[in-house]
Amino acid sequence: MFVDALMEKIDQLKNPSVMGLDPVLSYIPEALKQAAFEAHGKNLKGAAEAIWEFNKGLLDAVYDIVPCVKLQVACYEMYGLEGLRVMAATMDYAKKKGLLVIADGKRNDIGSSAGYYAKAFLGKTLIEAGVEESAFRADCLTVNPYLGGDGIEPFLTECKAYGKGIFVLVKTSNPSSGEFQDQRLIIKNAAQEEEPLYETVARKVRTWGEGLLGKYGYSSVGAVVGATYPQQAKRLRALMAGVFFLVPGYGAQGGGAQDVVPAFDAQGKGAIVNASRSILCAYQAPRWKEQFTEAEFAAAARAEALRMREDIMGALLG
Amino acid sequence: MFVDALMEKIDQLKNPSVMGLDPVLSYIPEALKQAAFEAHGKNLKGAAEAIWEFNKGLLDAVYDIVPCVKLQVACYEMYGLEGLRVMAATMDYAKKKGLLVIADGKRNDIGSSAGYYAKAFLGKTLIEAGVEESAFRADCLTVNPYLGGDGIEPFLTECKAYGKGIFVLVKTSNPSSGEFQDQRLIIKNAAQEEEPLYETVARKVRTWGEGLLGKYGYSSVGAVVGATYPQQAKRLRALMAGVFFLVPGYGAQGGGAQDVVPAFDAQGKGAIVNASRSILCAYQAPRWKEQFTEAEFAAAARAEALRMREDIMGALLG
Repeated sequence: MFVDALMEKIDQLKNPSVMGLDPVLSYIPEALKQAAFEAHGKNLKGAAEAIWEFNKGLLDAVYDIVPCVKLQVACYEMYGLEGLRVMAATMDYAKKKGLLVIADGKRNDIGSSAGYYAKAFLGKTLIEAGVEESAFRADCLTVNPYLGGDGIEPFLTECKAYGKGIFVLVKTSNPSSGEFQDQRLIIKNAAQEEEPLYETVARKVRTWGEGLLGKYGYSSVGAVVGATYPQQAKRLRALMAGVFFLVPGYGAQGGGAQDVVPAFDAQGKGAIVNASRSILCAYQAPRWKEQFTEAEFAAAARAEALRMREDIMGALLG
Repeated sequence: MFVDALMEKIDQLKNPSVMGLDPVLSYIPEALKQAAFEAHGKNLKGAAEAIWEFNKGLLDAVYDIVPCVKLQVACYEMYGLEGLRVMAATMDYAKKKGLLVIADGKRNDIGSSAGYYAKAFLGKTLIEAGVEESAFRADCLTVNPYLGGDGIEPFLTECKAYGKGIFVLVKTSNPSSGEFQDQRLIIKNAAQEEEPLYETVARKVRTWGEGLLGKYGYSSVGAVVGATYPQQAKRLRALMAGVFFLVPGYGAQGGGAQDVVPAFDAQGKGAIVNASRSILCAYQAPRWKEQFTEAEFAAAARAEALRMREDIMGALLG
């Protein structure tokens, strides 16, 4: 089951963080990019091949210290079929290296179409009776809840069938996230206060996960809760016992280690923190660029991943 | 500009409907499917090739009577890279036949990643200064608003740059759509009534579209408003002057011609109605199966598309 595997891997590596493999061409060292363009052309294929080499380098450098990677699907879709081919290959490569793989696709649709997305990323596609094939082999997928429960159910079905997981958007990390998510509803919570929409979503997420509870008290139906709103994360942690949090917004988005602490439970469990640009582009960062050349981008990523682990573990223990 | 081209095409064909190209293998005539399996294997490639032949047959049969097609991205993603290759080919084929193409991807993310989705479907991907390529060539994309304005802005940027459009989910057609969308907010509307979330979203959609107004008074930032909730569609039509509606739920989802009328303005404009299964599987329907064999699936689709046009135009004029 996804959540159990994730929690065991976090324990083993003492690292509740996930590397966001959200590569865009501007993140990639010039020499690596030009080599791919020369071999494959200055086109979507060349771009995708550059990303593939970049991803492999990063995975080789961090697979023994980071439990999990998150692939932002938009970054690969932007490079078309070639980009998606590299996304699939990266997922498979990461899994072979022992990492858990989250597809950050924020997929959503009404019942039957939600089911097709669920099969595409988590389950299997039926070709004919007895013949099935997997389209993209992720362990977990992020999903958007705006369409309500019948748009979520089909994902739960595949989670149950194949031991996979989902993270449902509850409170996202971006500046406009409050436009709808913070709108206060007439519905009253247990304390007779009017509650914001994201709390209504939060309660639903908890319910959706009841059939997917793992052996450590957490469910494979998790929630995305941004590090950029620590007060709300604290409240959600209290409301959502048993719901594992995926926390974006650390690093380049402005969240620090203190900001992610409220997402964890009293035992320092129940959450995993994502960083993308700060790890992928560590070789460009003021902190590391004296120490690492462009060609050493992977070593710089490892150094930053280790620094992030110390930073978060320090804040959790401190 | 997308909305102008769409309105002109609807006028020209006197048909405010869109064929939803949401093919799954069970919709495809057995002989066509087996031929594809024999030629390409009983695998994702064989499945995708069957869909490609099915799509071409349908497009050849309806291109002169239907203004627009909508491709449910989930249906193609389920068949992996092969499915997405066929999606891209179908989009290009439909455009060559003169149809407008909506990618029904319900994409959403925070700022920069939303921008990658926007480039993937509506814009161009930068390879290097002066070198750009299109990943998927749609005219319009459906998007999910849960993340708020900064998740929408990047789509508006591509719409402005390339004359494209988006439809934002406002009130969806599925049974659970009310779980969040109908939640009543403390915020009061102009009449000092507490309003449901979908009305707050509706007002935002109108604002987002202000910079993309076409010459017929409608914007290229449209709204998805399900036919299965006609009372709410009526209210949204009044609230959302200048916002074009994409109306799912006609046909197989249970909405009839009378249910879609409230989505149109007093001149019978401002909306387009989607039907997927009822057209794609017309050859299996009680109404048509005496008249058409499986091999005549395309002719049956044309007959149903014509019947749907009469049905909707009749309700609009009656």
